Amino acid sequence: MTLFSRVSQDCPAGLAAQRPRAATGRGQPTLGIIGGGQLARMTAMATLKLGHDVVVLERSADAPAATLATHALVGDWNDPAVLAELATRADVVTLENEFVDAAALATLERMGATVLPGSAMMGRVQDKYLQKVLLRDAGIPVAPFLPARTPDELHAAAARLGFPFVLKARRDGYDGRGNRTVRAAEDLHDAYASLGGGTRPLYAEAWCDFSVELATIVVRGRAGGTAVYPVVETVQADHVCRIVRAPAAVDAEAARTVERLATAAAVALGAVGCLGVECFLMRDGSVLVNELAPRVHNSGHYTIEACACSQFENHARAVLGLPLGATHLVAPAAVMVNLLGQSAGPARSAGLDLALAVPGASVHIYGKDRSAPGRKLGHVTALGATVAAAEAVASRCASEIRFGAAS
Amino acid sequence: MTLFSRVSQDCPAGLAAQRPRAATGRGQPTLGIIGGGQLARMTAMATLKLGHDVVVLERSADAPAATLATHALVGDWNDPAVLAELATRADVVTLENEFVDAAALATLERMGATVLPGSAMMGRVQDKYLQKVLLRDAGIPVAPFLPARTPDELHAAAARLGFPFVLKARRDGYDGRGNRTVRAAEDLHDAYASLGGGTRPLYAEAWCDFSVELATIVVRGRAGGTAVYPVVETVQADHVCRIVRAPAAVDAEAARTVERLATAAAVALGAVGCLGVECFLMRDGSVLVNELAPRVHNSGHYTIEACACSQFENHARAVLGLPLGATHLVAPAAVMVNLLGQSAGPARSAGLDLALAVPGASVHIYGKDRSAPGRKLGHVTALGATVAAAEAVASRCASEIRFGAAS
Repeated sequence: MTLFSRVSQDCPAGLAAQRPRAATGRGQPTLGIIGGGQLARMTAMATLKLGHDVVVLERSADAPAATLATHALVGDWNDPAVLAELATRADVVTLENEFVDAAALATLERMGATVLPGSAMMGRVQDKYLQKVLLRDAGIPVAPFLPARTPDELHAAAARLGFPFVLKARRDGYDGRGNRTVRAAEDLHDAYASLGGGTRPLYAEAWCDFSVELATIVVRGRAGGTAVYPVVETVQADHVCRIVRAPAAVDAEAARTVERLATAAAVALGAVGCLGVECFLMRDGSVLVNELAPRVHNSGHYTIEACACSQFENHARAVLGLPLGATHLVAPAAVMVNLLGQSAGPARSAGLDLALAVPGASVHIYGKDRSAPGRKLGHVTALGATVAAAEAVASRCASEIRFGAAS
Repeated sequence: MTLFSRVSQDCPAGLAAQRPRAATGRGQPTLGIIGGGQLARMTAMATLKLGHDVVVLERSADAPAATLATHALVGDWNDPAVLAELATRADVVTLENEFVDAAALATLERMGATVLPGSAMMGRVQDKYLQKVLLRDAGIPVAPFLPARTPDELHAAAARLGFPFVLKARRDGYDGRGNRTVRAAEDLHDAYASLGGGTRPLYAEAWCDFSVELATIVVRGRAGGTAVYPVVETVQADHVCRIVRAPAAVDAEAARTVERLATAAAVALGAVGCLGVECFLMRDGSVLVNELAPRVHNSGHYTIEACACSQFENHARAVLGLPLGATHLVAPAAVMVNLLGQSAGPARSAGLDLALAVPGASVHIYGKDRSAPGRKLGHVTALGATVAAAEAVASRCASEIRFGAAS
């Protein structure tokens, strides 16, 4: 009897002895994913469904995607030797998040690896200031923004934008981390210092008094074709997405504008794969693009159950050079509710039995080991005849699940 | 850097060192699956989605489910030591097929393992003659049948049933293997010999001149509750399922009869988890139960896309003691088409790019290494406003995919 497992054992000698999976009888290209969280996990499931093997690179063998990839490499994303090992095992390398160093990706590309999205695009999008410049230069409406690399630039920006405005780190922010709303001149110094001003580059953005936050996922293939998912409404609390409603309750004109801007952003960026596009619908009916995520996105999790082809499968199709799948809803409406950690501790879920007793709700638990306040540990999707009906089911189901210490 | 992999390496010493996954912070029970084919693979995906770990036991590390289970054990299903190892790693053990020796399962149960479905039920269902006796005794209509363990019994059965009739092995038959249609008295000897008559037990069944083959999946929870999926029409060729149409184009009365008989069979059998129930709709409108499969079933693959909760997730829910999910269709109709091997050779697929260009079709490739004529290597599902519309999409997509030698 032999055990095949990912539970830790150092086996550097084994590395060289193993042939790449692409050499098996199946002959399909292997997808490598940098990052092993829930986005990689759901991408891996969709890729495996198509008969392709998956190699995941993460810092922990217990990562959500590492437990189901065909192989898991454990190491640092930004270590060129680790990335090189990944490249030998995968025919195409993609990314779960935008925090991988673009220079490390460029090194991979120089070694001949196919990295999608590529390092040039990642370099433009992972710096939010450059991202905004790119969008503005492409004629895509964004909120006014200015650099704030120095106290002088900060004060000049405050004078131009007025209060309140939003001070942001150009890199590595997510779910509100790396953002501060500056409400008055006396807050400038604190906000600047708290975000690491002077040691890391910041920029300033006008405050947007929007009526609703909209989002969509656009997927762009290697040959340049695009497909866009329905426009959804996202509800945030404490800068973390809580609820996604599909389709958004906005007029057709606003939805078309979001789809058009998202597609234009993907083209301007030279995106390959999924691009999450977050927008503000302003009180005057205009649409501003708020932020891009060059990957599958929380606002598209509902597509697993609700669309003909999920964002995860479409991302895999796009980066593997396969035709894009249909993005239409298969039900009139769908709502997704995130399951967030309430407290720090083991990510043991309680109430799953009660949640699963809610008819028509689809529960996804990501298999993370640790809970933390606001950490995304799962989600629930429900389809319905209306958004309200779907939301009633999804919310009721989600409300039953708690993550925390063992009971 | 560490590689976690299932690619072969003997590590018996590692076995004892590894703690069961159930002991991690996630704290959810681990599901063990005996068998690692496509049924285990799709069950594993559904179980992982709920946040539970999966251990698969198969004879090959390249088995479809072994590549994505949290752990894979490689060994013989019927070896008690191997089963014992599985039991220490899993909180609940289930089965992908009905060919696991019931005595081996009973040994596992005596060791304290939770095996669902249990050895007693497996013993009754894996012997098709005993299965028929159980159904008949429960008042469930089945075709007339008689034992054919000896030439004398064979001739007596032929005299009672008339020609043609069907001679069947009591055990280990599937997809037509182990069955012979006997058309005349002069064929009796050949049919008996070819099925191993005298060395393994056979039985004889009346020929059923049915108008259509119907099937459903009934799922029964540990506490005894049941849920039944829509009744579907199955189209077989050469004894292998080719197409599944949901819902079946039969009147409501016939559909209700199938649902009622399926539920009665699950209760009579003491089933836990999914039970595939194949029926004949006879030309006089009556329904006979043809065969039971105590597991997820090919006729339920369409439920992944088409039902609120798939058969795979419902099987996992049932055996893990969780509430059953809703079984209703989320679209008016769905059709599944199997992808079968055309020839022996590597299971390299050609035409996947053409298949994926068909909008609205969902392609599943099982990741098997070897193709063989008639071997199930994948399937395609499409939803539609009508069965005809869904079938047009699924068939067009499936027709693009070929499995055979490398091009």
